[in-house]
Amino acid sequence: MTTIPGPIDPPTRLLMGPGPISAYPSVLRAMSAPLVGQYDPFMTTAMAQTQELYRGVWSTANDATLLVDGTSRAGIEAALVSLIRPGDRVLVPVFGRFGHLLAEIAERAMAEVHTIGTAWGQVFTPSAIEEAIERVRPAVLAIVQGDTSTTMNQPLDELGAICAKHGVLFYTDATATLGGNAFEADEWGLDAATAGLQKCLGGPSGSAPITLSDRAVALVQSRKKIEAGIREPGDPSAPDFVRSNYFDLGMILDYWGPRRLNHHTEATSMLYGARECARVLLLEGRDAVIERHRIAGSAMLAGVEALGLAVFGDVAHKMNNVVAVEIPEGVPGDAARAALLEDFGIEIGTSFGPLHGRVWRIGTMGYNARKDAVLTTLAALEAVLARFGAVVPTGGGVEAAAGVYAGAA
Amino acid sequence: MTTIPGPIDPPTRLLMGPGPISAYPSVLRAMSAPLVGQYDPFMTTAMAQTQELYRGVWSTANDATLLVDGTSRAGIEAALVSLIRPGDRVLVPVFGRFGHLLAEIAERAMAEVHTIGTAWGQVFTPSAIEEAIERVRPAVLAIVQGDTSTTMNQPLDELGAICAKHGVLFYTDATATLGGNAFEADEWGLDAATAGLQKCLGGPSGSAPITLSDRAVALVQSRKKIEAGIREPGDPSAPDFVRSNYFDLGMILDYWGPRRLNHHTEATSMLYGARECARVLLLEGRDAVIERHRIAGSAMLAGVEALGLAVFGDVAHKMNNVVAVEIPEGVPGDAARAALLEDFGIEIGTSFGPLHGRVWRIGTMGYNARKDAVLTTLAALEAVLARFGAVVPTGGGVEAAAGVYAGAA
Repeated sequence: MTTIPGPIDPPTRLLMGPGPISAYPSVLRAMSAPLVGQYDPFMTTAMAQTQELYRGVWSTANDATLLVDGTSRAGIEAALVSLIRPGDRVLVPVFGRFGHLLAEIAERAMAEVHTIGTAWGQVFTPSAIEEAIERVRPAVLAIVQGDTSTTMNQPLDELGAICAKHGVLFYTDATATLGGNAFEADEWGLDAATAGLQKCLGGPSGSAPITLSDRAVALVQSRKKIEAGIREPGDPSAPDFVRSNYFDLGMILDYWGPRRLNHHTEATSMLYGARECARVLLLEGRDAVIERHRIAGSAMLAGVEALGLAVFGDVAHKMNNVVAVEIPEGVPGDAARAALLEDFGIEIGTSFGPLHGRVWRIGTMGYNARKDAVLTTLAALEAVLARFGAVVPTGGGVEAAAGVYAGAA
Repeated sequence: MTTIPGPIDPPTRLLMGPGPISAYPSVLRAMSAPLVGQYDPFMTTAMAQTQELYRGVWSTANDATLLVDGTSRAGIEAALVSLIRPGDRVLVPVFGRFGHLLAEIAERAMAEVHTIGTAWGQVFTPSAIEEAIERVRPAVLAIVQGDTSTTMNQPLDELGAICAKHGVLFYTDATATLGGNAFEADEWGLDAATAGLQKCLGGPSGSAPITLSDRAVALVQSRKKIEAGIREPGDPSAPDFVRSNYFDLGMILDYWGPRRLNHHTEATSMLYGARECARVLLLEGRDAVIERHRIAGSAMLAGVEALGLAVFGDVAHKMNNVVAVEIPEGVPGDAARAALLEDFGIEIGTSFGPLHGRVWRIGTMGYNARKDAVLTTLAALEAVLARFGAVVPTGGGVEAAAGVYAGAA
């Protein structure tokens, strides 16, 4: 017999790691709204509203702005598998774990993958990327905007012109950055960009916003193969069709577009949540939300520095919404994180790869890019550091952060 | 400027189509529970509970019982792309639209796909499938259990022994059936089975329960390639790795397993919902829920027949949870469905392929496999048929359905 547990009843957590983070209360409320049928006029209207809201979030006029039903890496895979033809050369500048992920996904899509690297904690100059483009002559440039593994925010604003000059499709993964850092899909010349809800957008993981330029759409449509069972005479069936049905953006576009051709059954509750994430962002104002993230990030940075913690990486290129701090000598990193979680209900993050066991990552994003969340985290962190024997100036972290807020007011 | 709509506020709908259906109220409540971090002990415990609950739903002891983060077709693609090596022969008996979908996904996974067919509205005999297995010698048999396009429920109970005899992996898509019709993963010898929440399980689309036999796990693990960025020395990197990162069940198993190796960020709210779907089913009792679906389906069948509607297909092999009825001569199918939706808030379904415009599909599943839902739908259907000029016996549908409930009480 299966033992049947009680209804889900999560403990109260202040999620101050690199994501997922605590969702906006109104997003959680939206998740519990009653379901409707997938072709109900209410549903198709909600889908169209969600598309329009995300045009505002991405700063784009792209008609092809929609959701992929899966986590942020589902969005990445949908973009790459639909844009990359087997054998295509793809250039991936890697500055952290998620650069490796883009290379990995491109490799599985049978691309000829070329990477360039830099030290963890650094970003690339536009000229380093252009030099690599001239050498590799890729069909696609795939680059992460913000890599939470290093906290770095790769400047993208000059890359679109470089890609256009060399006839390269320009894709970025903005999962970690969108909504908390500048993003200008059209102005920066992006052909494709994807994200997730569980970072600055303040929602649950499980839906991946995506936007595609007309050039990307034309490529995707040229590879379209409408599945048997709903294919009609005259429907296309390209020989170089996308090697995934679920991630075939051509079919997904037909589902979201006026033809409303059945593909998957849209994840209704996740759509409600994604719609609300964009709605609260645009109600507050996109620039205001980014500024709120900038201030929260500055306050957290000032706070951890005032606690005497060394900050990892090139701070000038840090994302607004996450900071990596070196774990002080003698402090057991995992035990200290566990104490924060158990005694204060506050979660901060560990790290991957070369930084594992060396740094903690502290996030200030979405709903939690708030003064009370920043100050509470710093007060608890001070207490835990002191408990484990680190020498910390009493109240220094909180006061330094409060000072940033006072200066910004 | 983006026009910002109000918070999501869906109209009241009684969803009596082939799915999605109205979710259990407690599932909607679970969807709005606060988020926790992906490695929070509460989260990993909730994941383990969900696995154990779904072992009860699937009727299996399979350790590898978990969720794929996407809609039901994400589960299908994860199973097929992980089990099928390029060039493998795959046999797909097609008895409706979703058989075509399995063939389509297998083709995209570069299988050599062989199909056998039958008339829409029929199922296959075990001997027809065995004959095809002997001829094709496939590596995998992929078959839909219930195809909502035709309402047929393919008997699976003899196929496991046939597959075992011929060394064939046995996969089924139970999206339309699980929880509302008999399903015995272990007893029937399934190697892999996938589903979705939006049918008899009574939840939102967006999470795909999956279970894998030890034999299927061994195959998946033999193809494992741990992605760069988190790969450690000695980790495997098979040359015939799965051509999808998101759907690589080897990595997904490591995320759900004791190693908790980071892959995607589990879709927290969808996990909460999936957990609650299984919880309410097992609290009521799996056999009791299937019996509730059987009675609701019998009542709806009796009701539509008493309204004079012809039922499509081999009724002896109909799924419990959906019936297809021929649209009466002279009644405009789409206008009548629209009247049901607009005047009564009740949704019934249209059809695909050869049945499009010819039949409606009426579902009785999950939360809506209830007497009041069945009788209300029949009363409204009678009114709408009469409005469009069909000759219907007054109250006949409702009374016939009520009689089934009275007999079952």
